[in-house]
Amino acid sequence: MTDRPRTPHLDRVQTPADLKSMSDSELRHVADELRAETIDAVSVTGGHLGAGLGVVELTVALHAVFDTPKDKIVWDVSHQCYPHKIITGRRDRIRTLRQKDGLSGFAKRSESPYDAFGAGHSSTSISAALGFAVARDLGGVTPEGVGDAIAVIGDGSMSAGMAFEAMNNAGHLGKRMIVVLNDNEMSIAEPTGALSSYLSRLYAGAPFQELKAAAKGAVSLLPPPFREGAKRAKDMVKHMTVGGTLFEELGFSYIGPIDGHDMDQLLAVLRTVKSRADGPILIHAITKKGKGYAPAEAARDKGHATAKFDVPSGKQHKAPSNAPSYTSVFANTLLDLAAKDQKICAVTAAMPDGTGLKTFMERYASRCFDVGIAEQHAVTFSAGLAAGGMKPFCALYSTFLQRGYDQVVHDVAIQRLPVRFAIDRAGLVGADGATHAGSFDVSFLVNLPGMVVMAAADENELARMVKTAADYDDGPIAFRFPRGEGVGVEIPDTLEPLEIGKGRVVTEGAGVAILSFGTRLQEVLQAVENLNAKGIHPTVIDARFAKPLDRDLILKTAATHDAIITIEEGAAGGFGSQVVQMLSDEGAMDHGLKFRSMVLPDTWIDHASPADMYATAGLNAPDIEAKVLDVMGVARIENRA
Amino acid sequence: MTDRPRTPHLDRVQTPADLKSMSDSELRHVADELRAETIDAVSVTGGHLGAGLGVVELTVALHAVFDTPKDKIVWDVSHQCYPHKIITGRRDRIRTLRQKDGLSGFAKRSESPYDAFGAGHSSTSISAALGFAVARDLGGVTPEGVGDAIAVIGDGSMSAGMAFEAMNNAGHLGKRMIVVLNDNEMSIAEPTGALSSYLSRLYAGAPFQELKAAAKGAVSLLPPPFREGAKRAKDMVKHMTVGGTLFEELGFSYIGPIDGHDMDQLLAVLRTVKSRADGPILIHAITKKGKGYAPAEAARDKGHATAKFDVPSGKQHKAPSNAPSYTSVFANTLLDLAAKDQKICAVTAAMPDGTGLKTFMERYASRCFDVGIAEQHAVTFSAGLAAGGMKPFCALYSTFLQRGYDQVVHDVAIQRLPVRFAIDRAGLVGADGATHAGSFDVSFLVNLPGMVVMAAADENELARMVKTAADYDDGPIAFRFPRGEGVGVEIPDTLEPLEIGKGRVVTEGAGVAILSFGTRLQEVLQAVENLNAKGIHPTVIDARFAKPLDRDLILKTAATHDAIITIEEGAAGGFGSQVVQMLSDEGAMDHGLKFRSMVLPDTWIDHASPADMYATAGLNAPDIEAKVLDVMGVARIENRA
Repeated sequence: MTDRPRTPHLDRVQTPADLKSMSDSELRHVADELRAETIDAVSVTGGHLGAGLGVVELTVALHAVFDTPKDKIVWDVSHQCYPHKIITGRRDRIRTLRQKDGLSGFAKRSESPYDAFGAGHSSTSISAALGFAVARDLGGVTPEGVGDAIAVIGDGSMSAGMAFEAMNNAGHLGKRMIVVLNDNEMSIAEPTGALSSYLSRLYAGAPFQELKAAAKGAVSLLPPPFREGAKRAKDMVKHMTVGGTLFEELGFSYIGPIDGHDMDQLLAVLRTVKSRADGPILIHAITKKGKGYAPAEAARDKGHATAKFDVPSGKQHKAPSNAPSYTSVFANTLLDLAAKDQKICAVTAAMPDGTGLKTFMERYASRCFDVGIAEQHAVTFSAGLAAGGMKPFCALYSTFLQRGYDQVVHDVAIQRLPVRFAIDRAGLVGADGATHAGSFDVSFLVNLPGMVVMAAADENELARMVKTAADYDDGPIAFRFPRGEGVGVEIPDTLEPLEIGKGRVVTEGAGVAILSFGTRLQEVLQAVENLNAKGIHPTVIDARFAKPLDRDLILKTAATHDAIITIEEGAAGGFGSQVVQMLSDEGAMDHGLKFRSMVLPDTWIDHASPADMYATAGLNAPDIEAKVLDVMGVARIENRA
Repeated sequence: MTDRPRTPHLDRVQTPADLKSMSDSELRHVADELRAETIDAVSVTGGHLGAGLGVVELTVALHAVFDTPKDKIVWDVSHQCYPHKIITGRRDRIRTLRQKDGLSGFAKRSESPYDAFGAGHSSTSISAALGFAVARDLGGVTPEGVGDAIAVIGDGSMSAGMAFEAMNNAGHLGKRMIVVLNDNEMSIAEPTGALSSYLSRLYAGAPFQELKAAAKGAVSLLPPPFREGAKRAKDMVKHMTVGGTLFEELGFSYIGPIDGHDMDQLLAVLRTVKSRADGPILIHAITKKGKGYAPAEAARDKGHATAKFDVPSGKQHKAPSNAPSYTSVFANTLLDLAAKDQKICAVTAAMPDGTGLKTFMERYASRCFDVGIAEQHAVTFSAGLAAGGMKPFCALYSTFLQRGYDQVVHDVAIQRLPVRFAIDRAGLVGADGATHAGSFDVSFLVNLPGMVVMAAADENELARMVKTAADYDDGPIAFRFPRGEGVGVEIPDTLEPLEIGKGRVVTEGAGVAILSFGTRLQEVLQAVENLNAKGIHPTVIDARFAKPLDRDLILKTAATHDAIITIEEGAAGGFGSQVVQMLSDEGAMDHGLKFRSMVLPDTWIDHASPADMYATAGLNAPDIEAKVLDVMGVARIENRA
């Protein structure tokens, strides 16, 4: 950190306005220095490195040519926006990226007027940019004004249906807007799907150098101004491209492929587009994820996400792990089960690494499906597999399962098809912040008739839930587990499936009963230890199931305790809501049972460590202890001391 | 009904197996008679007519050529499946369509093994068919076996991102499967979007008769067997098509366009495909919605959905309406407001008629956007409009908003953008059944920080909520209202906006307080009338807001009553859940407040009239009355009498 890169040109850039007076040659220097600064900053904070390095030149060129923040750059996913943050007034805080109270790792409207639209999930940028373009033409008023709308979207993001919906609508409306397809042949994992092959074919026909030359020369041939519709597209294409018809068929003018690291080419194309565009235009830029930083370029994931690292070597500083991650417990258990059961198959949406399915994919290639960033399809494809007699495990992060919610309702639950949902990253996830929090899955699954909803309290519980799901064939079943390491419990070789709808009593106590759903159990046990020292001995129950509830156990507990506290790693409307609905329906609360439900608070919780985020949420051991004391009527003052 | 059509050929068809021994000429007769039978049946029941008439020949040809139910026909949306139901053993019940305890108006797995995959929402068929195809190749076992997988999807449905995701994955996997693109240039409304224009161009180049001849001749030229990948596609295309490249680029072999009403052509193409296909194939069939029934063909919506009607004239038997529909109250109020506020704009997803926005679209064309069947895009496009300084009203049915759930969370709520969600068809919707029930919107919206969630108790309340939403600029706001007529209350010329988070006391009473959210208020008032006659006088509150709750009013009510009953037209986890969470957090239930939450039960409720469905759900006046008596401890026996 003492040895920061020399950045004389970048130092002159406080805001994008400072780029306007620079020569093209100076802009090239700014880009080079911006790359060095990005690498240095991420080496300090960790974070998404590869994507940002791939768009350094694009970032400088866009801000140099367009008039931000009046012109709106909408970064898709937006983990590539670190260079953008550096040149839009946030360089002084760039080494707080993803830290508590620091800069977000994504574009965030509340952080800067230059962040026109926030993101975190993929494939939203064209829809948002079209909204800006239409608002501009209708006279929409914002503090910064509304000018051009530019979506920057990766080839992986382009595979999601939402991007197609937006292209389809934008091509129809014909408004001036710009989509930069940042084609690095990578999303988070290797690309998959027919579109990806198609994009490769677009520049596979001719040597890249020839294409570059052709594109450079062709810029001057753009007809002024572009003519309408198909004819316009055709005219342009004749001069400028070797393909691109898929986008033209959707009503876009296609320019490319161009070299996304060639500043001259980028500036020329963007200037021409800015001065002459009168409809939707797609610029196909070929880039390299991790560009310009050898360790990232050499890595299999192109430096997608990294811990803090040593700049010269690229060596990451990772804390040693004490226990296997929940993800690996899920993945390894599924592998073991799949070895014995040929019907088990697995579906992931562009997350073979993140979901731990990489090994499954290598070992059982014919039974593992990476469908691309396409959660809607992932869910209904799984439903089709189940209807066809297979045992599909649909492995998604909680936050991304939101994308397939209607499909869970309509294609899986209503039809009672036995799709197994392995819901990773449940609860608060840390540095990725609010956009990636797995807050809502329990709430949106638990009121679907026939759904089974489980949460694992530790690794062993998780392994047993995988086994339970594999055995269960009566309908849909879901189990959730958090990001990060387990608690270190042993997992036996032979896994006993759980009895559906049965919880377990962890500690028999009296007075107050704590019903825990998920990994807050560890915090509960810590709180109970403290309470025991004070002579208070709550009962602790690991509910295991939010649906079906263990009615007998919960009703019995209600009848024998003064108070019930539920706790879960999710928003209201989930486990606690199910418990109180059942208890009140049964009249079990009519005569003074105290009830408290500890859930995520009604606020968006910003990025920090998961432990910090749970502290903010009030779901850590001290909060549990305080809640017990409070519900018992023990003086709050003592508790606060 | 006494004068049913003569159907000598159709009478021989008990199951599709009976088609196998028939000549092509006989199959043509079967198709003609099936059309007549479909028209007659729908004249008795009402329902979706136009779509079924468009696929009569396709239905007969598919069942004649393929081996159902081993081969899986997956009908997209599946409102076109009435002819399919008639020839798959359900003709004797076809005049119970959409009636209580009768046949579903959609494909339904629990109804017949010939209904391989249920639907109701659009664009799921390719995903499901791909699931079947993969399951087949992996040895999936089902009672009927798993053979070919055939998705039948309309051009409107093809515009949804989900269909694109499935095509992208299917083209990549290269499994044998068949997609029949049933192109009638209509979804529910006129088609929109660039894809639609593209499809038109596919057969606009040459006279249709020439295409037909070309396609017919070309079938014999299919290479046996098809070769792999792009080369295969190119070879086929050279002989058979005038375009189709968009589908080829996604890895499909493209056949077409063919005349979907020409039995000879259909049979020839399907037989060839069945015998020779070894990868994904798209058959592009041109059909006419409403084909063969003049009143449907002449109608603007091509007989999309109809009441019971007189067959010779097509005249529909509609019950006279006593009050304006909620949909029209929303639409008219928005029109009035839009006349005075140029920032108000409207977004619909292929539902300009259903959402009442048709007039808005005619009057303010530049401010109204039909984005096609694309709810994900609709929501984020609205978010972009809001970020660009407009006041977007995103008008969707509750059940379809599920498709845009992640976008509501990620693009609207987290960014606190003032998108106004007009949620139509909230609650149970009647003949469309479980797939269309608006059961979950309150549950999935109410736990999003910063969201405002309202439900209208009558037309006047709805109009005021539209006004409230137009005025509210602090973040997202949603209001829900049911299908059907209002209660006939007057709507004043000048609309007062509601105070955010304030309910209203409808009747001051004692003992029990009923907190109503939405149009169940009318049932509550009826129940209270009966209770009054028994000397029981509950307090009645129209909560108006599920979020933010009227804390003061609810806490005061809790303090002054023995029992609180909440009621809503939605699943658990919604309004009642919010109320009890707040009351228990505040300790207001610690000393014996009785609480009951009346919500939709934990079952899927089959199609019937809305009133019947609510009776099944236990949310009608008698149920409310019983709940009040029960919570008061009045003998249940009296109540049951």
